[in-house]
Amino acid sequence: MNLPLSLRRLLTIICEASLEPELVRELARLGARGYTITEARGQGAHGLRDGSWGASANIRVEVLCDELTAEAIVDTLHAGYSANYGMVMFVTDVAVLRPDKFRGAPG
Amino acid sequence: MNLPLSLRRLLTIICEASLEPELVRELARLGARGYTITEARGQGAHGLRDGSWGASANIRVEVLCDELTAEAIVDTLHAGYSANYGMVMFVTDVAVLRPDKFRGAPG
Amino acid sequence: MNLPLSLRRLLTIICEASLEPELVRELARLGARGYTITEARGQGAHGLRDGSWGASANIRVEVLCDELTAEAIVDTLHAGYSANYGMVMFVTDVAVLRPDKFRGAPG
Repeated sequence: MNLPLSLRRLLTIICEASLEPELVRELARLGARGYTITEARGQGAHGLRDGSWGASANIRVEVLCDELTAEAIVDTLHAGYSANYGMVMFVTDVAVLRPDKFRGAPG
Repeated sequence: MNLPLSLRRLLTIICEASLEPELVRELARLGARGYTITEARGQGAHGLRDGSWGASANIRVEVLCDELTAEAIVDTLHAGYSANYGMVMFVTDVAVLRPDKFRGAPG
Repeated sequence: MNLPLSLRRLLTIICEASLEPELVRELARLGARGYTITEARGQGAHGLRDGSWGASANIRVEVLCDELTAEAIVDTLHAGYSANYGMVMFVTDVAVLRPDKFRGAPG
């Protein structure tokens, strides 16, 4: 590319939609600079997750961040939520433009 | 990470929404432990795929699984559907927590 | 896999939904063979991006293409839009079936 790309982590979290307010607060607290949410539905270890039902709808949350922030989010969500909520997390490497936007914390 | 992450495959299937019931049956039969669906629309080799029309709406299906299950799904869907349906599949490596949830088959 | 998989780029663009018509024209002009759009919302450097508001809703656009096409799209969108619009782009490697469908340009 003519523009410099830098490696960052893309953390994807799929969970119950009812967790959204709490999750968004945790992401901010742990230093994520942004997130993207899409509505989803599906089936997993916790049974049928149907997007057409309020409480059991799913969300798919993407967070572009550095390694340390991804670690902090995964560890915190795993400890705090995964025992009691349907939650799947996976991490992949991506190349991004303007990596300064995706630092762990402001400044 | 403090928590152990393991490598799995993330298989993404983009196809006509009308295929969903059949696709979901195939995924279960081939050993997928779960899936996530989001509504989508788009354009591809099969022409405009408009999410606002019933029959030609698209779905984006994600399956987190092991290598052998990804192979079985890709081979089966390619053989059975891709000649007659708009369908795109791609596979990427992801790191997951609790990899036991994403084995090919129960047990 | 029994079927041959080839490496391609998956370019994901998250931007304001109002950009969609222009973006789709640019993608076609730059040689993308197809794209997939899902509705999204989120928060980023440009403030709260709420999917329930018309103008500030977000879209998540995926383009499966070769390296040169991904470069052209990233460079063009960065130059033309990223200063004035909320826009995030990231690129990852994926394995695809039927790579001829994802060449940069027809033919």
